[in-house]
Amino acid sequence: MKIEGRNAVLELLKTDKEIDKLLMQRGAEGSAGRIFALAREKNIRVQFADARALERESESGRHQGVIAYVSEYAYADLEEIISCGAGRLVVLCDGIEDVHNLGSILRVAECCGAAGVVIPKNKSAQVTGAVVRISEGAAGHIKVARVPGINYAIDKLKENGFWVYGLEADGEDLYGCDLTGSAALVVGGEDRGIAPLTRKKCDKILSLPLFGKVNSLNASVALGIAAYEAVRQRR
Amino acid sequence: MKIEGRNAVLELLKTDKEIDKLLMQRGAEGSAGRIFALAREKNIRVQFADARALERESESGRHQGVIAYVSEYAYADLEEIISCGAGRLVVLCDGIEDVHNLGSILRVAECCGAAGVVIPKNKSAQVTGAVVRISEGAAGHIKVARVPGINYAIDKLKENGFWVYGLEADGEDLYGCDLTGSAALVVGGEDRGIAPLTRKKCDKILSLPLFGKVNSLNASVALGIAAYEAVRQRR
Repeated sequence: MKIEGRNAVLELLKTDKEIDKLLMQRGAEGSAGRIFALAREKNIRVQFADARALERESESGRHQGVIAYVSEYAYADLEEIISCGAGRLVVLCDGIEDVHNLGSILRVAECCGAAGVVIPKNKSAQVTGAVVRISEGAAGHIKVARVPGINYAIDKLKENGFWVYGLEADGEDLYGCDLTGSAALVVGGEDRGIAPLTRKKCDKILSLPLFGKVNSLNASVALGIAAYEAVRQRR
Repeated sequence: MKIEGRNAVLELLKTDKEIDKLLMQRGAEGSAGRIFALAREKNIRVQFADARALERESESGRHQGVIAYVSEYAYADLEEIISCGAGRLVVLCDGIEDVHNLGSILRVAECCGAAGVVIPKNKSAQVTGAVVRISEGAAGHIKVARVPGINYAIDKLKENGFWVYGLEADGEDLYGCDLTGSAALVVGGEDRGIAPLTRKKCDKILSLPLFGKVNSLNASVALGIAAYEAVRQRR
């Protein structure tokens, strides 16, 4: 897997993840120096090349002079997330297919201090290099578990004392809900939202007040608002 | 300008914006029928073509069988936004260059009931067809003003009784701030954040608590959280 872009690679270097090689553009300035120093400190092989070579290697077209080669993304187990999740938030993605949305969701989850993110193995974006880059490296710091289906994860979370809240239209007012305990927030896919059976499994559906004519917020924005309402309530 | 994708075109059809022509894929199903009916109702010329023709015409590659041709985006005046903005939110973008971010910001602004969004004419993404599509059509419902510089807009807003808040790290706690009056929220660009002079012009810098290792949220997510904190306080 290739991790591209300066912020994503910097964040990657701060983790314990194994990096096979770093490809850097000759003469790159600014934060490239810091990346090089960190890589040297960690004994990571650094190879310099010209801009054209990086263009050829880049999958995103947005490498900013730095490409890191790492082994495939190391997913966590659902049990790991549950075991460190008591009193915290867990994020469940039900069919997020857009890499921008998944990357942004991982970034939100990491920033708000969630215990982890759960994605299904099928009909969902997976944690690719592009997702890592879009998450600004958050993917390297947050636990992401892959499960056969989100409903399975909901059952497991409920067994472990989590309240499960779906974020979607036509539900109860977000601001009337106590989010201070162990809570799982379910966000639905871009087009179809939360699947009907999954929606039924949620303890509550929570909605944000909308004042415009567009009837929904982007999944990662809605998650950010709900997760930070939980943060606010916990203080 | 081309507006592509079903949701974006549906939202466009709900506005008073003039549509020159609608290009639809032959045999398209689902919401395509509703789009066709609405277009007929409004006497808009609808042309049918095969998938290949739509592929050729598409700028985004994500037309979902529907492309609308409209005149260039009609920007509002800053004065229009100010005159309907008393007691409401106004969003100022300081150098948002990514079309995904700008589209997402317009969607947040429309959903939370903001009076409008202000962008600079230079070093900023402009409201293109791609931005309209990413905003899910919100761009057609929210006022967007273009100004020579954001600092000029801040001065004008202050003259009209607005408090101006920059959203960035190292500021005061968002949750300790009274956001119930006329308030302008400034979001900074992807890489460089809010410009130093603009930051100085803000009445306050407001920050979100961050619990992870990644030190910032995406601009549209941070805006969503701050804007909905204002919504919560106003109730």
